[in-house]
Order: sequence, then structure tokens, then C-alpha cells
Amino acid sequence: MMGKIACANVLSDLYAMGVTECDNMLMLLGVSTKMTEKERDVVIPLIMRGFKDSALEAGTSVTGGQTVVNPWCTIGGVASTVCQPNEYIVPDNAVVGDVLVLTKPLGTQVAVNAHQWLDQPERWNRIKLVVSEEDVRKAYHRAMDSMARLNRIASRLMHKYNAHGATDVTGFGLLGHAQTLASHQKNEVSFVIHNLPVIAKMAAVAKACGNMFQLLQGHSAETSGGLLICLPREQAAAYCKDIEKQEGYQAWIIGIVEKGNRTARIIDKPRVIEVPTKE
Amino acid sequence: MMGKIACANVLSDLYAMGVTECDNMLMLLGVSTKMTEKERDVVIPLIMRGFKDSALEAGTSVTGGQTVVNPWCTIGGVASTVCQPNEYIVPDNAVVGDVLVLTKPLGTQVAVNAHQWLDQPERWNRIKLVVSEEDVRKAYHRAMDSMARLNRIASRLMHKYNAHGATDVTGFGLLGHAQTLASHQKNEVSFVIHNLPVIAKMAAVAKACGNMFQLLQGHSAETSGGLLICLPREQAAAYCKDIEKQEGYQAWIIGIVEKGNRTARIIDKPRVIEVPTKE
Repeated sequence: MMGKIACANVLSDLYAMGVTECDNMLMLLGVSTKMTEKERDVVIPLIMRGFKDSALEAGTSVTGGQTVVNPWCTIGGVASTVCQPNEYIVPDNAVVGDVLVLTKPLGTQVAVNAHQWLDQPERWNRIKLVVSEEDVRKAYHRAMDSMARLNRIASRLMHKYNAHGATDVTGFGLLGHAQTLASHQKNEVSFVIHNLPVIAKMAAVAKACGNMFQLLQGHSAETSGGLLICLPREQAAAYCKDIEKQEGYQAWIIGIVEKGNRTARIIDKPRVIEVPTKE
Repeated sequence: MMGKIACANVLSDLYAMGVTECDNMLMLLGVSTKMTEKERDVVIPLIMRGFKDSALEAGTSVTGGQTVVNPWCTIGGVASTVCQPNEYIVPDNAVVGDVLVLTKPLGTQVAVNAHQWLDQPERWNRIKLVVSEEDVRKAYHRAMDSMARLNRIASRLMHKYNAHGATDVTGFGLLGHAQTLASHQKNEVSFVIHNLPVIAKMAAVAKACGNMFQLLQGHSAETSGGLLICLPREQAAAYCKDIEKQEGYQAWIIGIVEKGNRTARIIDKPRVIEVPTKE
């Protein structure tokens, strides 16, 4: 799963540009110096297989890369492609009246942490009033599914519905990436975010942890998050419907593009959309 | 210097294919969790500048990448280019009668280690009979110069002198990379290496360390080593002369291509060429 997530995360940068075909991937692997030989021989091939399987699913392949030893186990890579101007979407064309669509729920970091805390009584005690073990396990699996899912269909549909630009949502959180996207716009626009789709119960967990995650402030890091897309208002609903039909996962209209000075913000009391975990 | 070496090392894979123009570079940086904030703020910008300076020297630029935290400080990157078939040299065309040219001396790993041992009396005692402090410092600086030097001119001259293929010499040592190159040949050839150019005194240091480095067996890892090139016999001397004229650094004819089963070996008692360190 770690390999699949890494691969989806690497490809996501191309998908955010509307590039749906990847010519070539490299895999960068750090094998932990703390693993026993046996752990290494079991874990590393699984990670490599996950990465390669996802590349295959994306219609590309891993032709090289590098493996090093490192204290931490790490996995990453490079995705590259050569394409024509009509095959990518420069993310600078948002106009007043556009809406913002997000294609994966927030809260992956919260879910992964909460799941680790199941074995840490001191941590667990801080959140057990707002969430059950079962909730956390479900949220964790939802997060895994979400992180391993490619943004490829989301990217393909950007062309179909005339997207004006997009970014993927990863380490800087929803607002961090929204701000970067806003700052690169040609037009004098700003992004205002009203809705936060969050994996079920993870908003409550984040709140119970005080300022630690800053999830509702838009700063919680996501791993292999969804695309945040500027779409013409009249196309957005159809975009969301189409992606749900093709993938079985929802996308959400989370904000609007208004006249402004190329910044992004989340309104004071955003609506939190609890995104259900599957059985 | 660490950044320059990393950049030269990354580009080296293109240069080994005879590709002299790099379209785009990414920098991958791991900032050590063990650095103080002050160390970090001094060291990391220097590394980044070194990397970018070398990219500039190579006529390319760093357009992106990623920075992560990691227990160890790490630096690496990606070099990519799109080119025509006449711009690269597929390294599979060695023919009987070719000679093997090496464009940088061996012994970078030995020199870097010996230099660290200046502060470790127990280690230093093992080599002080064969080498002086001054020797080690000079060897270290020669290794730094060598590792930071781009293989770009070496690559350009491959075209001028009709090279039949090349590899760069890095982590698997001279013989490791020679064997890989030999195994990919179209013709039934083998590589025989007679001469080992080694940074002055480092062969003696390696010997004094017993089996640790395996330098004279061809297994000592090199960082950002030179190109090992198959050249038509009548062109090799001119190649070496030309590179020395352009760069001020020697290259050496180190072996021959003979009929064989696509393997590489070093003869029993290879001649060690002591490569002088500069004042």
C-alpha cells in the first residue's frame, strides 16, 4: 500500500496539470538501516510491487531509479512526460464566477495518526471521547483507499469540463496549495472556501487535539490528496457527477472564485462535510 | 561542494549516453533532523547553491524538486532531456580492437575516508605508515575536484572520436560498471583492464586497509566518477589529448576490448598509475 500511495502521489503532479499520460517513471527507494535482513526482504519487494502496480494502472512503467540505505524507510519517485500544449492545462486561468472542486476528502494525516494512537494509551485517551476504535479503523482504511487512488480520471475530466487550472493537495494542506494556486493566476481573483469534506469523525479528532493538525484551518498536511480544480460554474456539478459515476467516489464543490488580490482563504465557520467511510 | 558533486553525479548518467544537453533538473534534498536550526540555515543554502551553480555550468537549470526531513542529510536529483537519435550513443557497440578510456582517477571513496580518519587515531594508526597527513589532505582535495567536475566535455568528445559506448563509474566501482557495460554489448566481446589510475597514495592506503575497499580489485565505490568509454583504438590517444587540452585533467587508456562472452575483468597485477595531486 505504501508503494501504491507513493506512486499515486508522484503522478499527481502531472495530473494536476491535466496531463493524463505519463511517459516514464523512476522509483527512489530508501531501505531502512534499522530493518533486519528478513524484514527488508519481505517489506521492500512489497513496496516496490505496489509502486509498479500503480504505475501499470496509470498506463506507464518504472524504467529506473535508485535505491539507497537510509535510517528511515522512504519511497518516492519521478514522473515525466513530453506533450503538446493542448495536452496540459496551465493553472493560471481562473475567472470570477468559477467554483472550486475538491476530488478527495481531507483528513488523511489525522486518520493515519489516530490509527497509530490505538496502541498509545496516552494519546488515545485524548481522542477516545469523540471517536471509537471502529471509527478510527474505518477512517484509516478510507484514508488508505483515498491516498492510493490515482488522480488520473479527475485529470481527464478537467479537459472535458474546461477546467481553468488545478493543483494537487499534499504537504501544505488545502489552504497552502489553494494560496499557491491563487498567487499564480493571470486574473485578479481570490479563492474563498466554504466547505471542508473530511473523512468521517476526523474533524472531531482534529478538534480534540487542539492546534496540532490545523485541519479546519486548512493546514493539515495531506498525502496523495485530491485535485483542487477551478471550473466554470455551469460545468462543476456535471464534473462531480461524472467522476462519481466513473470512480464510485464523490467530489465536492467547496468554494468560489471572486474578484481579489490572488489570495485564498477559508471562511470563518466552514461547513464540515462528513465523508462516510465504507463498510 | 556537496551540492556540486551531487549535481555532477546526477548529470553523469546523461553524459554517459553521450547526451550533452540537459533540458531540466530537479533537486531532491533531505534536511537532517539532527541539525540545529542554525546549522541548517547555513549548510542547506550552501548545498542548494552548489547544486544550482553546477546546473548552470552544465547549461541547464533546476526547475523544481522536493525537500524532506530525514535523519541523514541527503542530496540528489533528476536530470532529463528529450533528444534526437543522433544526440545519444547507445552503449552497446564495442568491437574487438577497441580500447577502454577512463576520464577520472579512482580512489574517491578511499580519499574521503582517509580524510575522516585524520581525527580518529585508531583508524589513522592503520594507515600512517604509508601516508602523511599532507598526502591525505591533497588526495581529499583532488577527490573533491574530481567529483565536482562534470563529465560533459568527456561526453561531447565521445561524438567527435566516434565512441562505441560508455558508462559512468559510480557506486559499483570500476569493475562493476565495466561488467554491466560488457553484458549489454551486441558483439561477442569482453573487456580486459590493465591499468588503474588512482589518486596519489590512495592505492597504498587501500592496501593498508586490507580487504576493506577492494580498490585494486575494481570494487571500491566511486562518487561522481569518470566515464569509462569504448573507443576505436586509433582515436583513443587523440581523445585523451583533447580532453586534457580542454580540461587540464588527464584521461587514461586502461584496457582493451577482445573477443569474449560479454564480461569484464582486471588482470592479475594491474599497473597502478599514481595520479598526482595538485599543489
